[in-house]
Amino acid sequence: MLVVMEKGTSEEKIQAAVNAIEKRGYTARPIPGGDRVSIGILHNKGSVDATHFLGLDGVKEVIPVTKPYKLVSREFKQENTHIKVGDAVFGNGSFPVVAGPCAVESEEQVMSIAKSIKEAGAKLFRGGAFKPRTSPYSFQGLGKQGLKFLAKVREETGLPVVTEVMDVENFDLVEEYADVVQIGTRNMQNFSLLRRAGKSKRPVILKRGMSAMLQEWLMAAEYIMEEGNSNVILCERGVRTFVRHSRNTLDLSVVPAVKKESHLPIIVDPSHAAGVRDQVIPLAYASAALGADGVMIEVHNHPEDALSDGAQSLYPHQFFAAMEKMNAIHAIVGK
Amino acid sequence: MLVVMEKGTSEEKIQAAVNAIEKRGYTARPIPGGDRVSIGILHNKGSVDATHFLGLDGVKEVIPVTKPYKLVSREFKQENTHIKVGDAVFGNGSFPVVAGPCAVESEEQVMSIAKSIKEAGAKLFRGGAFKPRTSPYSFQGLGKQGLKFLAKVREETGLPVVTEVMDVENFDLVEEYADVVQIGTRNMQNFSLLRRAGKSKRPVILKRGMSAMLQEWLMAAEYIMEEGNSNVILCERGVRTFVRHSRNTLDLSVVPAVKKESHLPIIVDPSHAAGVRDQVIPLAYASAALGADGVMIEVHNHPEDALSDGAQSLYPHQFFAAMEKMNAIHAIVGK
Amino acid sequence: MLVVMEKGTSEEKIQAAVNAIEKRGYTARPIPGGDRVSIGILHNKGSVDATHFLGLDGVKEVIPVTKPYKLVSREFKQENTHIKVGDAVFGNGSFPVVAGPCAVESEEQVMSIAKSIKEAGAKLFRGGAFKPRTSPYSFQGLGKQGLKFLAKVREETGLPVVTEVMDVENFDLVEEYADVVQIGTRNMQNFSLLRRAGKSKRPVILKRGMSAMLQEWLMAAEYIMEEGNSNVILCERGVRTFVRHSRNTLDLSVVPAVKKESHLPIIVDPSHAAGVRDQVIPLAYASAALGADGVMIEVHNHPEDALSDGAQSLYPHQFFAAMEKMNAIHAIVGK
Amino acid sequence: MLVVMEKGTSEEKIQAAVNAIEKRGYTARPIPGGDRVSIGILHNKGSVDATHFLGLDGVKEVIPVTKPYKLVSREFKQENTHIKVGDAVFGNGSFPVVAGPCAVESEEQVMSIAKSIKEAGAKLFRGGAFKPRTSPYSFQGLGKQGLKFLAKVREETGLPVVTEVMDVENFDLVEEYADVVQIGTRNMQNFSLLRRAGKSKRPVILKRGMSAMLQEWLMAAEYIMEEGNSNVILCERGVRTFVRHSRNTLDLSVVPAVKKESHLPIIVDPSHAAGVRDQVIPLAYASAALGADGVMIEVHNHPEDALSDGAQSLYPHQFFAAMEKMNAIHAIVGK
Repeated sequence: MLVVMEKGTSEEKIQAAVNAIEKRGYTARPIPGGDRVSIGILHNKGSVDATHFLGLDGVKEVIPVTKPYKLVSREFKQENTHIKVGDAVFGNGSFPVVAGPCAVESEEQVMSIAKSIKEAGAKLFRGGAFKPRTSPYSFQGLGKQGLKFLAKVREETGLPVVTEVMDVENFDLVEEYADVVQIGTRNMQNFSLLRRAGKSKRPVILKRGMSAMLQEWLMAAEYIMEEGNSNVILCERGVRTFVRHSRNTLDLSVVPAVKKESHLPIIVDPSHAAGVRDQVIPLAYASAALGADGVMIEVHNHPEDALSDGAQSLYPHQFFAAMEKMNAIHAIVGK
Repeated sequence: MLVVMEKGTSEEKIQAAVNAIEKRGYTARPIPGGDRVSIGILHNKGSVDATHFLGLDGVKEVIPVTKPYKLVSREFKQENTHIKVGDAVFGNGSFPVVAGPCAVESEEQVMSIAKSIKEAGAKLFRGGAFKPRTSPYSFQGLGKQGLKFLAKVREETGLPVVTEVMDVENFDLVEEYADVVQIGTRNMQNFSLLRRAGKSKRPVILKRGMSAMLQEWLMAAEYIMEEGNSNVILCERGVRTFVRHSRNTLDLSVVPAVKKESHLPIIVDPSHAAGVRDQVIPLAYASAALGADGVMIEVHNHPEDALSDGAQSLYPHQFFAAMEKMNAIHAIVGK
Repeated sequence: MLVVMEKGTSEEKIQAAVNAIEKRGYTARPIPGGDRVSIGILHNKGSVDATHFLGLDGVKEVIPVTKPYKLVSREFKQENTHIKVGDAVFGNGSFPVVAGPCAVESEEQVMSIAKSIKEAGAKLFRGGAFKPRTSPYSFQGLGKQGLKFLAKVREETGLPVVTEVMDVENFDLVEEYADVVQIGTRNMQNFSLLRRAGKSKRPVILKRGMSAMLQEWLMAAEYIMEEGNSNVILCERGVRTFVRHSRNTLDLSVVPAVKKESHLPIIVDPSHAAGVRDQVIPLAYASAALGADGVMIEVHNHPEDALSDGAQSLYPHQFFAAMEKMNAIHAIVGK
Repeated sequence: MLVVMEKGTSEEKIQAAVNAIEKRGYTARPIPGGDRVSIGILHNKGSVDATHFLGLDGVKEVIPVTKPYKLVSREFKQENTHIKVGDAVFGNGSFPVVAGPCAVESEEQVMSIAKSIKEAGAKLFRGGAFKPRTSPYSFQGLGKQGLKFLAKVREETGLPVVTEVMDVENFDLVEEYADVVQIGTRNMQNFSLLRRAGKSKRPVILKRGMSAMLQEWLMAAEYIMEEGNSNVILCERGVRTFVRHSRNTLDLSVVPAVKKESHLPIIVDPSHAAGVRDQVIPLAYASAALGADGVMIEVHNHPEDALSDGAQSLYPHQFFAAMEKMNAIHAIVGK
């Protein structure tokens, strides 16, 4: 951390700032520049809280240097983390595809979709049994019944299943049925839930918060890893911006940025970002080209009757065609 | 809801869209315009899910007309909701001030601050016992011990206390000690927590999510009201934007916008929005001038030693001076 | 346009709103719903200014239906516009690549880079002679001398050249030397410049404004087309968001969104969006996969000595490798 | 500037970075930390371009320390700049109000409004003769005729007039008629226009760009000052965010932030930020309370017939009432 003093700050104030830094247990090293003095904070383990020093007399700015995350960082662990689920591996350079409907609606629905997507080459099945909905009056999911339908999908097709967990109360239940547990965008900083996920034996898909900065997202993963679960798959799903032609803005540049900072795998969910089918397919191709560690795509056998998010769900035949192109693209860019 | 068809869509496609609308149980009324046909969806109770119709053949756009919230809306209840806590009333045109440190650190700390802010005229004391922190390595609050210190503050000063609850697990505990329960910005769409708050007898301060649109915020309040608790105080605390000169961007225009749409009281927290003391005071004055139903301000007896958010906490003497001006401003704009 | 009245508005107010609409020369048709009345504005040529009716008594909201653009819209012209420059065609399903340094620095520099990128398969050369810089103290470009170096590039390599024009004053000059004139992100709503570009015989690359919504961008193109120049190539170059891991956030979903709304070709500039080399290459692949009509990429023979934007410029050998993969990807997704 | 090296970077790479820095003419000082080495760049005059070093081998990050602006900075000039126009002074602690219609529509219109706002206590009259409009089909202003009407307003009422200049071509003309020249949000980085304004003898109101960071805005003012015109009045008018309940989000925290960084006066335009009358008045009060150096407010004698922005224009009687309260609030917070 660099504590930048105002131009012409007196020696006394500089010394006071040095004292305040050392009082917190750090080493302070004043660096005289041309115009002003800055004070480096050295030998800190982990990051330093900027707010401790921001309000001190004569301090103009406080600039963080060390990143606050440890376990998730590539500096901590050089090699990519590989997370194996069923036939799929996330993080080893392959491109596993997770597919399925937004919500589990019935046994026939999930079974029909699961067979289609398996045939098309998807490696995991997704479907929501507990649905976080903006409105209390919207369909909230089938709950435990939905989980049972997912279990049947696994039995019959052999596909591992991914489903969202919304709270600590239902974690045991979801964990019992799911192969991979998903934490949604609205819960990215639900710290109690993150800690619970850290105690789980299931891999966790951690979606990016709707306005999360890279660092906050990695810190959320750090919460999970710090409790002992190192199987965290990050999932970019679009962020909130001023843009109105898509539901959210898919931030694809976060994929290379994550790969630089962290050893964790990162996949992309173009369906929730786009919100409309026309955009989902090209964004899925873009994700494959970009070097993501997989994608998660919504597919529905009858999108026009879907209980939620029909407009962004692909028809099975569209998904088939898209799988083929995604695989071809991945063959070009992947290793 | 208005379903806008593409220019020159065939009669068959228009009829198919009408059928799809009626299949969902709504009334469809085609409205021929100069260039294109739109279909109005009428006689819907509550709002209609746009995604049901967005992907239909020939549909260009779906435009919501009815708002999705009911209980929170001013159309449902014309008069302002008044929420009484101790001596304070939120929503009746008065300007109660909530003040205290970011985190409860010790008995002496809270007691010293509480006495100062009471003397200055604040009506409620705030302090965090459970702290949501971006990093698992930051100070997480004193937990139950912190709640006990808050109870002592109430005993000795008579000030009601406000504190944050982070999860359903600790709700009973927090509720036992707090006069007002606060739901933080990261939990605005933690729906399990909202439902639990809806069953509480305590008034709830519901902070706006960091990137929540007005409608999403009101829907979160709707979750609480729908479970039976109508004592919801909304709190604007800044939203995430591209701006870097303040921690978040305080969106003051949301205050008149909320008052137009809803009968619920709305207060402003300039401390978390600003992140630096220099901005907190002018933003507090602005909040008073704007007609907010109160403010929540961080005050610390020794900001330079604070365990969190020291840079944005006012010194007691600053708070005194600010209270005087806020009251004078409120006397001008209030009724 | 739909004028939504408040619940329970009196007949008088509704009639007054109808009168206000008709006074402006439109047809007003009240549509009684379950809860409230809305008034459709029909038979308008072009779009209607919402602000005319927003402040009327009893009006709750005004919802635009018709889009304000004409000449740029796909409803106006169904087939893709093809823009031919030298060997390249933008908009016909091919994938022309524009490459070169941020700024023209010297004859040797541009000549060396031009030869490299031509060999790699780029179809146009780019380089700035007039540079818009945030700081008046930064390098502002070589001006006319730079244009002459660009002309030499064209003579020696046969590559058409693209360069930015910053103002009406220098338009004649730039037009004389350039094959394609570029309007930068900061000038997207410099309406005098747009009108001048509309009178030019050169194709125009119109970069998206840093916070432009799709509709504003298309309206800027409409300014150019309305003056008679229909050779407009749109260029997505990233938008400003809260994100800090890249200079701007490349909004790839705008590519399918533009293609749906407009017949104009759209290319992508990943270099300015990313700001760092590590992200440029994957984003270029993503652009090819997405179905963009080309890309514009910064390449420098000695990035470490570049007078501007060195960090985002590719080394020639990186560009070679990237070209190969982009072409392979385009062969998969293109038709 | 601080060049942060990756953990465990070799001595050779560090030396290479030092060499690269010194090659550019700066002094480089390596600062060994616990984990990694950072290199301070010292004795630079003005700011250093981060992109020069960002792409070097072994460099993880480049962190700017020195601000790039000089003439506009408070470090350069401690005392507030006072700008006198007619009876008004911007920057001396008073609160001058600029008022008038969005566009000049006719002689009667401007004269009627001017008399009202003068009576209410406004110090300057505003009105657009050249209007920047998103659509080429919207009303573009009366041009020179509009300027003549403004001149009549000055003659008859004695109020100085403010009007926007959109391009260098019309600058001489506008300058001839206007007392204060306004540069609009879309032209904040029209560098040719800024340079021309820098050669003007008229004070300039420089509106903030719709997505301008504080530093970019100050740099735009630096362009004007660097050419010799130091009478720059900054004007906050709302920034673009994800928010939809107001046209733009008024960023009031920028007022104290500007005052900390710069000696220039800053006023607020709540009309364009809000877009609706209901929000304009409370935001105007908030601006007075915040310590802004004035406000600019749209007033129209017949808002329902206005050719542009009617929904955000106050009726004269509303403006009267608002002036009274703004003055009373300013008396409390001002010195």
